[in-house]
Amino acid sequence: MIIILTPSATESDLQELVQNLKDRGYGVHLSRGVEKTIVGAIGAPDEDKATIAEQLSSFNYVERVIPILKPYKIVGREFHPDKTVITVRGVEIGGARIVVMAGPCSVESEEQVIETAKAVHSVGAAVLRGGAFKPSTSPYSFHGLGEDALKMLSAAREVTAMPIVTEVMDTRDVELVAQYADILQIGTRNMTNFSLLREVGLARKPVVLKRGMSSTIEEWLQAAEYIANRGNYEIILCERGIRTFETFTRNTFDISAIPAVIGLSHLPIMADPSHGTGKWHLVAPVAKAAVVAGADALMIEVHPNPEKALKDGAQSLKPDTFAQLMRDLSACAEAVGRQM
Amino acid sequence: MIIILTPSATESDLQELVQNLKDRGYGVHLSRGVEKTIVGAIGAPDEDKATIAEQLSSFNYVERVIPILKPYKIVGREFHPDKTVITVRGVEIGGARIVVMAGPCSVESEEQVIETAKAVHSVGAAVLRGGAFKPSTSPYSFHGLGEDALKMLSAAREVTAMPIVTEVMDTRDVELVAQYADILQIGTRNMTNFSLLREVGLARKPVVLKRGMSSTIEEWLQAAEYIANRGNYEIILCERGIRTFETFTRNTFDISAIPAVIGLSHLPIMADPSHGTGKWHLVAPVAKAAVVAGADALMIEVHPNPEKALKDGAQSLKPDTFAQLMRDLSACAEAVGRQM
Amino acid sequence: MIIILTPSATESDLQELVQNLKDRGYGVHLSRGVEKTIVGAIGAPDEDKATIAEQLSSFNYVERVIPILKPYKIVGREFHPDKTVITVRGVEIGGARIVVMAGPCSVESEEQVIETAKAVHSVGAAVLRGGAFKPSTSPYSFHGLGEDALKMLSAAREVTAMPIVTEVMDTRDVELVAQYADILQIGTRNMTNFSLLREVGLARKPVVLKRGMSSTIEEWLQAAEYIANRGNYEIILCERGIRTFETFTRNTFDISAIPAVIGLSHLPIMADPSHGTGKWHLVAPVAKAAVVAGADALMIEVHPNPEKALKDGAQSLKPDTFAQLMRDLSACAEAVGRQM
Amino acid sequence: MIIILTPSATESDLQELVQNLKDRGYGVHLSRGVEKTIVGAIGAPDEDKATIAEQLSSFNYVERVIPILKPYKIVGREFHPDKTVITVRGVEIGGARIVVMAGPCSVESEEQVIETAKAVHSVGAAVLRGGAFKPSTSPYSFHGLGEDALKMLSAAREVTAMPIVTEVMDTRDVELVAQYADILQIGTRNMTNFSLLREVGLARKPVVLKRGMSSTIEEWLQAAEYIANRGNYEIILCERGIRTFETFTRNTFDISAIPAVIGLSHLPIMADPSHGTGKWHLVAPVAKAAVVAGADALMIEVHPNPEKALKDGAQSLKPDTFAQLMRDLSACAEAVGRQM
Repeated sequence: MIIILTPSATESDLQELVQNLKDRGYGVHLSRGVEKTIVGAIGAPDEDKATIAEQLSSFNYVERVIPILKPYKIVGREFHPDKTVITVRGVEIGGARIVVMAGPCSVESEEQVIETAKAVHSVGAAVLRGGAFKPSTSPYSFHGLGEDALKMLSAAREVTAMPIVTEVMDTRDVELVAQYADILQIGTRNMTNFSLLREVGLARKPVVLKRGMSSTIEEWLQAAEYIANRGNYEIILCERGIRTFETFTRNTFDISAIPAVIGLSHLPIMADPSHGTGKWHLVAPVAKAAVVAGADALMIEVHPNPEKALKDGAQSLKPDTFAQLMRDLSACAEAVGRQM
Repeated sequence: MIIILTPSATESDLQELVQNLKDRGYGVHLSRGVEKTIVGAIGAPDEDKATIAEQLSSFNYVERVIPILKPYKIVGREFHPDKTVITVRGVEIGGARIVVMAGPCSVESEEQVIETAKAVHSVGAAVLRGGAFKPSTSPYSFHGLGEDALKMLSAAREVTAMPIVTEVMDTRDVELVAQYADILQIGTRNMTNFSLLREVGLARKPVVLKRGMSSTIEEWLQAAEYIANRGNYEIILCERGIRTFETFTRNTFDISAIPAVIGLSHLPIMADPSHGTGKWHLVAPVAKAAVVAGADALMIEVHPNPEKALKDGAQSLKPDTFAQLMRDLSACAEAVGRQM
Repeated sequence: MIIILTPSATESDLQELVQNLKDRGYGVHLSRGVEKTIVGAIGAPDEDKATIAEQLSSFNYVERVIPILKPYKIVGREFHPDKTVITVRGVEIGGARIVVMAGPCSVESEEQVIETAKAVHSVGAAVLRGGAFKPSTSPYSFHGLGEDALKMLSAAREVTAMPIVTEVMDTRDVELVAQYADILQIGTRNMTNFSLLREVGLARKPVVLKRGMSSTIEEWLQAAEYIANRGNYEIILCERGIRTFETFTRNTFDISAIPAVIGLSHLPIMADPSHGTGKWHLVAPVAKAAVVAGADALMIEVHPNPEKALKDGAQSLKPDTFAQLMRDLSACAEAVGRQM
Repeated sequence: MIIILTPSATESDLQELVQNLKDRGYGVHLSRGVEKTIVGAIGAPDEDKATIAEQLSSFNYVERVIPILKPYKIVGREFHPDKTVITVRGVEIGGARIVVMAGPCSVESEEQVIETAKAVHSVGAAVLRGGAFKPSTSPYSFHGLGEDALKMLSAAREVTAMPIVTEVMDTRDVELVAQYADILQIGTRNMTNFSLLREVGLARKPVVLKRGMSSTIEEWLQAAEYIANRGNYEIILCERGIRTFETFTRNTFDISAIPAVIGLSHLPIMADPSHGTGKWHLVAPVAKAAVVAGADALMIEVHPNPEKALKDGAQSLKPDTFAQLMRDLSACAEAVGRQM
């Protein structure tokens, strides 16, 4: 931690700060420049560093406190250089093969989900996605069929042998969802729902952690650390676009986040071009881009009749468009030394 | 709802769309311009409009769907022009008097909270704030004392007779928190935790709803609609800054949101300049600004020793600075025809 | 243009508006819903529509004015469906072959620019980039060698036969720069310098138009329209990242903008992953992503000694890393049916 | 400057870096923590620090370079603690009295500008604003009457004795505009037009420097430094809203920027609530907020017939609404110890 003093800081201010740091168990380095005095605090003790930084910032002779260490450890590359591979019912996520998770935004009926599952499975999707509990900006929108949808997803798994991923939104539902799902999903609106993160940290199922739409990459990795901190290390990070001033797309898909996360963390990284763009005709180019940028997996919305979908029809592919995309993705995967 | 067709839409596309709308019970208006054909759908039925808009967007001959009606009703001014006033233990929020809610970010000890409560009460604060359950970006930071903190807040209420407001983060805790608190708070990180919104919608306590740091004003009002939709109409909206590219301040306090909300909704509007700026020396000017812009209430962090605070020390006022601010605010309130 | 009235608009307000529109030569369509009255104005005359929309918005009984037609014509796909191909000294931009423009951020010496030019040319770069006039956030930074740099670029062109692209920042310099350069570049900080756009619109040289770091795609296309409106149709649009809350990268590269622009405009689209990321180790993955997303060209910073570069060293590739990237890009280009 | 090494940096990497810094004339402080090695570079020479930071960032064993000194000097408070007061034809900007600059967005006719000038002058405006050269997102919009407008403004000055402020957009026009105007204005779209900044830095007229809509406070002060660096110290900073994801307002007015700038710079600070909100009914509350937050001046658009304005009608006040605002502002100014 580095502390920069204001130009008006006095010698006694400096001594007070140094004593404060020593009392907390820090080693102290002083660096007096012509214009600024800088204090380095080394050998950080086990205490909470964010709190200490906040406390020091409140001194009126402190201009800025700069943390040096990354605020996450378990999910970071620095202490765990090897890539994590997560295996779910035989599907490896984070390996050489790129995993596609596809299916409808919302589960609407057993027929719809089985039809979609068969369609996406037949062209190479490895995991079935489908919403049972759905977040919705409006209280008047469809919120999912709940446990009934979980049963329909299970029925589709019976038919196709595809593992299923579905979102959980409420701490009270984690146990229920984990009974049916193979992978739990934390949606973008709940990335900062820390109670929920802790709860899935106790579950014995892998977790897809979507990036919060206004979260930095660092905050996203801290959210993963919450889950890992409770003992669940099987986390798949999912870039799904961030909120910016651009309104043409629903979100701005942050393609750089993929190689950035690969550098910072050992966890598998997935891309969701459906939510990332919000427009079905942009899904394919962004999906290809994600693959060559290094994504381990893709999550793509497919609906047999987007014009009747109860959620997110505008961004859903039809089965035939999805099939075309899967063919195109193969060439992209090979171009970067991977397979679909 | 207005639907704009692409330039390549054919006459049969148009007929399909018109039939689709009529089947849903809409009246249809056609407007054929030289370059664009526009379809108006009127007399919207009770179905979910957002879903219908999504479905129509998925037709490849539809360029854009523009909703006309506001996506909230109960909390909007259009059907409820009179301002809502919420009374909590005799304190009126939304009336002529500006209500200040003050106290520490986190409850750390009974002594700390009672000392702070007395200090802020003696200079005019009407409600005591204090965190029992604390959201934190890092899993290694302080997360609050939980029920113990609720008891300490109650003890402070005994001493000062101030009603208390505190955050609830987990659907499972709503009942517990409501037993102690006079006002429940939904934090910025949970504004899109729809399960939690529904749960506090069932509680019989007023709710402070903080704006999500990346939520538009419209989405914020929709979040309020979630709560109101469950029967709880006592909602106080709280502007606390949004996330932007500017890093000098912790958030960008959106001052325009105050008069904007006053125009759009009948609910009381509060400002939180502590989180809105993240720097104690900016709290006073932004608090004054919020008052003259029309805020009904302010939420301000006060800590007897910010340099030892377990959370958010950098943005907390000391009791003497807070006392000075309360004096300065009186003149501002009077300048716009109100009182402190 | 669609005008939505406020709920409190009276019949006489409506009549005033209708008369106003008729006086301007519009055909008028009325659509009276239960809750809202909507007025459609059709057959827009040649007047400035943005101004009219502004004027109508100022009536206090008008809630919203929604423009229907796109605010650009010449550069849009609607009236010009065929892709534009621009040929510069034999290099086709917008054709099947992907064009790479590479070179140092700033021209520092004839030796440096010739060495770099040879290096990038030998591995397939088609156009030489290099800054003679450099924008810099700080007045104390290097601002380029000016005309001397233009001469050095010309010398490098002599040696390699590569056409050269360089930025112009001042209306007074357009003629000078156009004497040396084959392609003029408008930087992100000048995308809204409308005087400069008009001036390059009069030049007889192709223009690279970088997207403003806070400009929407629609505003970017309007900036292109400024240039086209003066008679210069040879415009290459360049996505180079937008400003968001994320600070890990210098900008957020908007990958979706590439397929979006392809749909909206017939102009060639280029990607600048160097500025788009600001970090050299992210350049390669984002460059590949841009190619498979549909980019016609790439602009990449290459410097023989990034650690001594006078500008943007952190994002410059070394010649060997660039050579590796060029090899990797070939496979990506082929994966989407193109060549390098 | 502080340089943080990557965890994989070797001892010889460190020695190379230290030597590099010493060769540049820096004193070097080493601080070896358990997990990170940090290098402090002190006694910065006169070279360009931003360039050096960039160069050091390009070493692959350097994780991060953190500048310590503020990147502006002349306009900063640190070396010039006393507030600057600028006097224009007897009007003091930056003194105890709050200065209001008012007038139409665009000058449309002599009659319009004189009528508006008289109206705003009669209720206390001290400076007349009016656009002669207008930036416009669309090439098809009104761009101002140019020199004719400058003459009309001069005529209005004759009548009212108010000094005039007007925008200059092109380096070639600075001399012309300076012949007529008392204060030159740099608009938000030209804050990063560095050629123009340098040119007005040579003019002998005060400059209003609007904040770029996507510029940080620090970049804004660096833009001011460009002007000051050329010898023109009479700069008025003007906050006019930044671009964010919120679309209800045209921009997000950054109220915190006012007290922030007061702390960082000695220059007068102005607020433009007209562009900051884009909606006339939000102008008054935001204007009041700006005054109590510490603004020295306000810039407000007033038009006798906003529904016929050639630019920005939606955000213009009518003379009677403006008169009411001026009365209301008096109380606000007094509440913070100032006068109108």
